[in-house]
Amino acid sequence: MQRYFSSQTYEESQQSALVLSGDDFHHSIHVMRMKAGDQCYLVFADQVAIIAELTEVLAETVSLREVSRETQEKELPVAITIASGYPKGDKLDLIVQKGTELGAYQFVGFPGQTSVVKWDAKKLNKRQERLTKIAKEAAEQSHRLVQPEVTLYSQMSEFMATLANYDHVLVAYEESAKAGEHGQLVKTLSQIKPGESLLAVFGPEGGLSSQEIQTFLGAGGSLCALGPRILRTETAPFYLLSAASYQLELLKNV
Amino acid sequence: MQRYFSSQTYEESQQSALVLSGDDFHHSIHVMRMKAGDQCYLVFADQVAIIAELTEVLAETVSLREVSRETQEKELPVAITIASGYPKGDKLDLIVQKGTELGAYQFVGFPGQTSVVKWDAKKLNKRQERLTKIAKEAAEQSHRLVQPEVTLYSQMSEFMATLANYDHVLVAYEESAKAGEHGQLVKTLSQIKPGESLLAVFGPEGGLSSQEIQTFLGAGGSLCALGPRILRTETAPFYLLSAASYQLELLKNV
Repeated sequence: MQRYFSSQTYEESQQSALVLSGDDFHHSIHVMRMKAGDQCYLVFADQVAIIAELTEVLAETVSLREVSRETQEKELPVAITIASGYPKGDKLDLIVQKGTELGAYQFVGFPGQTSVVKWDAKKLNKRQERLTKIAKEAAEQSHRLVQPEVTLYSQMSEFMATLANYDHVLVAYEESAKAGEHGQLVKTLSQIKPGESLLAVFGPEGGLSSQEIQTFLGAGGSLCALGPRILRTETAPFYLLSAASYQLELLKNV
Repeated sequence: MQRYFSSQTYEESQQSALVLSGDDFHHSIHVMRMKAGDQCYLVFADQVAIIAELTEVLAETVSLREVSRETQEKELPVAITIASGYPKGDKLDLIVQKGTELGAYQFVGFPGQTSVVKWDAKKLNKRQERLTKIAKEAAEQSHRLVQPEVTLYSQMSEFMATLANYDHVLVAYEESAKAGEHGQLVKTLSQIKPGESLLAVFGPEGGLSSQEIQTFLGAGGSLCALGPRILRTETAPFYLLSAASYQLELLKNV
C-alpha cells in the first residue's frame, strides 16, 4: 500500500479535510491509478501514520478520510546519521536509497582528503535536492515514519563542527578490519540508549587519511571494524545499519 | 593490496614456481602497474592465502615468491546461499557484488511466479558468466578466501530440488515484517553451528506467491522478517548477511 508524507502534524491535519496535492496527487492518480475507495498510508510530520481511504478525486487534489492508526514501530530506537566522504559516480544515490530503507535518520556528505570528485556550491545544492527526493521515495516505499534529511557540506570544517551534537561517533576504518578489531561496534550498540544519536563516518574510496582519523579521534570518535572483510565505501553503511537493527530491534525483543 | 585467486590448492602450488598469467597477469601489470618487489595476495583453491612478492615480469607471466601466510579468518563460519527470484534490470549484479563483499558463500537465481523478466537458456548462461565475474572481482576486492559460485535456474522445480541440501532454510517474507515478526532470524543465527549451511530465499519485486510460500514451508523452510521496515528485493540480502556477520563474527568474539 502506497505511503505519502504530509508536512502537517497529525493534530494540524484535524483542523481541515485530509487531501493529497501536488506531486503526491499526481503520483496517486496518474502513477498508482488510485480511485475512490482505495487506501493508502498518510504519515504526518510528528511520526503519526494512518491508513486513509480516498473519498473523492478532484481536478488537482484527492480527498481522504482516516480509517485507522498505524501502531507498529517502524523507526530504529536511536537516530543514526550516515556521513560519507564524497564517493565517485552515483554511489551516494545508492547509499541514501538503501540506507533509508535500512533505517538511517539522516545523511551527511563531506569532502574527504582522498575524495576525487570536487563539487562547487551550485552542484552541491542540486545533488542535495536530488538525494532528498531519493530519500523521500525510499522512505515511502519502506514504510518509514521519517524522511531522512540530506546535508552536503562543501568544507570538512563545517562537518567537523557538528560532531559535538552526537551522543556517539563511530568511524569505520579499513585498517581496524585488517587488524581483526571486532569489539567496538558491539560495545557501542550495546551501550547506546533509546533516543540517543549515533554518527557513523565512512571515508571515500581512498579511505580516510591518517590526519582525518586523528581529527575524528580528537573529537571523541571511536574506530570500528564491520567484520573481517573489506567493504566498499557504499556497502559499509548497509552493514552498520543492518547490525544496528539486528541488535536494537530483533535481539532486544527476543 | 591486490588479491588474486589461483585455481590450484596451496599444496599443488608448491610443485612449481608461483606465477600470475592470463587476466591476472594483465590486471597486475597493465591495470595495477605492479613492478618487481611489489606485493599482492594469492588465494588458493583450498582457502589458503599468502602474501607474495613479484620477482620478475616476463612477456606473459609474472613470477612471485611467498613472503608470508595470511592468518586472519575472513570467511563467515557458516555457508550462506542467497537465492533471489529474478528481479528486474541489473539488480542481480548489485546483489552479487555487495553480497560477496558481505560474505555470501554462493548465489542462486530462480524464476519466481511474480518475476517480470523471462530469460531463456542462452540468456541465463550469459548472465551466469557475467555474475560469476562480478563475484570474482568483489571477492578479490573484499579479501575473501572463497569466490562465490552463481547458479541460475530456468525452472523453479530445479531450484526446489536443492532445498534438502541445506541445514537451514529461511524465507524473507514481507508479510512477516508487517506482522512484527522478529524472532526467527535471531533463532536461526543463534542455533546454526560452524560449518552448517543456510539458504536464504528472497522473492522478486512482486514478492513470493502464497503457493511458493507454502512450497518453501513444506520443504522445511521458516518465514522470517528482517526488521520492521519493508526492504527492496536487492536490499534484503544485505541485511541478512550483515546480521549474520554481526551475530557470528562480532558478538561471538566479544
